[in-house]
Amino acid sequence: MGRIFAFEDIHIAAFASVAGREEALGPLGGRFDFHDTENTFGAKTWEQAEAEAVGMALAFAMKKWKSSQAPEVLFAGDLQNQCMASATGLLSFGIPYFGLYGACSTMTEGLLLASIALASGGVTSAAAASSSHNAAAERQFRLPLEYGGQRPPTAQWTATAAGAYILEKGGTGVRITHGMAGKMVDGGITDPANMGAAMAPAAADSILTFFRETGTRAADYDAIVTGDLGEEGSVLLSVLCEKEGVRLQRHRDCGCLLYDRERQDAHAGASGCGCSAAVLAAHFLPKLLCGEMKKILFLSTGAMMSPQSTQQGGDIYGIAPCILLEA
Amino acid sequence: MGRIFAFEDIHIAAFASVAGREEALGPLGGRFDFHDTENTFGAKTWEQAEAEAVGMALAFAMKKWKSSQAPEVLFAGDLQNQCMASATGLLSFGIPYFGLYGACSTMTEGLLLASIALASGGVTSAAAASSSHNAAAERQFRLPLEYGGQRPPTAQWTATAAGAYILEKGGTGVRITHGMAGKMVDGGITDPANMGAAMAPAAADSILTFFRETGTRAADYDAIVTGDLGEEGSVLLSVLCEKEGVRLQRHRDCGCLLYDRERQDAHAGASGCGCSAAVLAAHFLPKLLCGEMKKILFLSTGAMMSPQSTQQGGDIYGIAPCILLEA
Repeated sequence: MGRIFAFEDIHIAAFASVAGREEALGPLGGRFDFHDTENTFGAKTWEQAEAEAVGMALAFAMKKWKSSQAPEVLFAGDLQNQCMASATGLLSFGIPYFGLYGACSTMTEGLLLASIALASGGVTSAAAASSSHNAAAERQFRLPLEYGGQRPPTAQWTATAAGAYILEKGGTGVRITHGMAGKMVDGGITDPANMGAAMAPAAADSILTFFRETGTRAADYDAIVTGDLGEEGSVLLSVLCEKEGVRLQRHRDCGCLLYDRERQDAHAGASGCGCSAAVLAAHFLPKLLCGEMKKILFLSTGAMMSPQSTQQGGDIYGIAPCILLEA
Repeated sequence: MGRIFAFEDIHIAAFASVAGREEALGPLGGRFDFHDTENTFGAKTWEQAEAEAVGMALAFAMKKWKSSQAPEVLFAGDLQNQCMASATGLLSFGIPYFGLYGACSTMTEGLLLASIALASGGVTSAAAASSSHNAAAERQFRLPLEYGGQRPPTAQWTATAAGAYILEKGGTGVRITHGMAGKMVDGGITDPANMGAAMAPAAADSILTFFRETGTRAADYDAIVTGDLGEEGSVLLSVLCEKEGVRLQRHRDCGCLLYDRERQDAHAGASGCGCSAAVLAAHFLPKLLCGEMKKILFLSTGAMMSPQSTQQGGDIYGIAPCILLEA
């Protein structure tokens, strides 16, 4: 059997995004369901702020869904150690829970697994959510923001953002028609300030495999969207695809869309689970719903590493699960 | 729709377990596919040792499976920050990968999601694996072993162990006939040296819900097996069930089976993702295969917390997904 999951009649029934200050100042500023200029979301710590954000995203999505019931299962994960933002922020919903860890690929991993759960016939509704918080991620993976450490040009800015989605069997909305799990790819990168380079080989592997298995090419899609390759990773992706004879037309990267390159000092662009989670909801799904786009191949991109694996000299592996979204 | 996933014709086609020194000295000592008395599995760090262990478990399972192909998807996760044991140990297999984080419930979460993936029709084979390592976990969650910190009687001993399973649609072997995702339950416990108390309410919730939704009772099962409640959590589970009028006959806990209570100083018993992952393969599946048992309700139990969430005063949430195993 091939690598592709094919889905029938699975729709994104509702979705929502929540963001922080920098994200609200960027080009997508007006399109989030909520933003907090303090980045605290009413909580006392950055970690709890992220938990609040993902909880708000799911609450908004459920409000738009207009069902008297809750989704039957929930897939979620984040970057915090032991994925505590998702656990803390989503506990109070009381929805049967599958915790995920796919680094910054978690949003697509969750949407794909929610689609698989619906396709299994075991549930008729499923939710997926993911988040990241700049201040929580920076002090965990690098240094607390207060240190004011200098960042190299390849570094990305972890987004303070969250997204939540409710999928249904039947109904209306954008359809998820196909999906594919990512393979971990080790490109030999060990620099945690160059995630784009670590993830680009996995994105290329997934895109080229998806094309091959479905007999399609770049021109068949209105957009091929990656999660958070950033400026550096996006260039590398295009080089890697061209090496295989594929010209990647209409590639967009959520990490390059979230901040204004000129006005905002985000270096190589945005990253974090919340980046693709929020940009899909704030930017791409509305384009599919209004008919401006009809078919998007969507991949969140993850970098599998921990501060300790880096200290021990380990490589950073990329992974890029994908879903095909159709209007 | 109810909480239960019902599966047809899904079998555990192959399985394997790997363990460390203490586990090999315990009552199940002779039943692991491999054990390493040095706990290093040939690696230079404890973190990489765990990665080697989970890789070995999957390699053994694949060898027993005797297929020329690899499983089509792989579900895995562990306790290390950013789940690096699974990522590092399983990278070289090149199998499309879903990273999970369910704390010590990850083994059952993975088996359940592998069953759901098979039920969706998208794949005909799927693998699940999980692991833990005493020295890696202790220095991450508490203190490095070299400190010799004293442990309270409710503390459990994180198992150095791994398990891997290959599931197929069709074929032969023990069947997974039903499954249910866990709900996170907050019992108000904040003591990271009393995980049993944090997880017992979630285990009770899952067992009582499973009984209610399937119209069954404890006497209908040859065993009701929890992952790593340990001595403390097992007593609490029985109290919580009795409060709801359910007498939990034939309850077994993997955490109470892995070490010898008298001879080995493991305090309240074993814990860690690797505990239920290895004990299912080394102890319970053989009992189902030889006909000694026919029907086991199996729940791994997870405690959702991080050192930081504990330092910030957060509660530890329990979660307990379950699967029904039938000979």
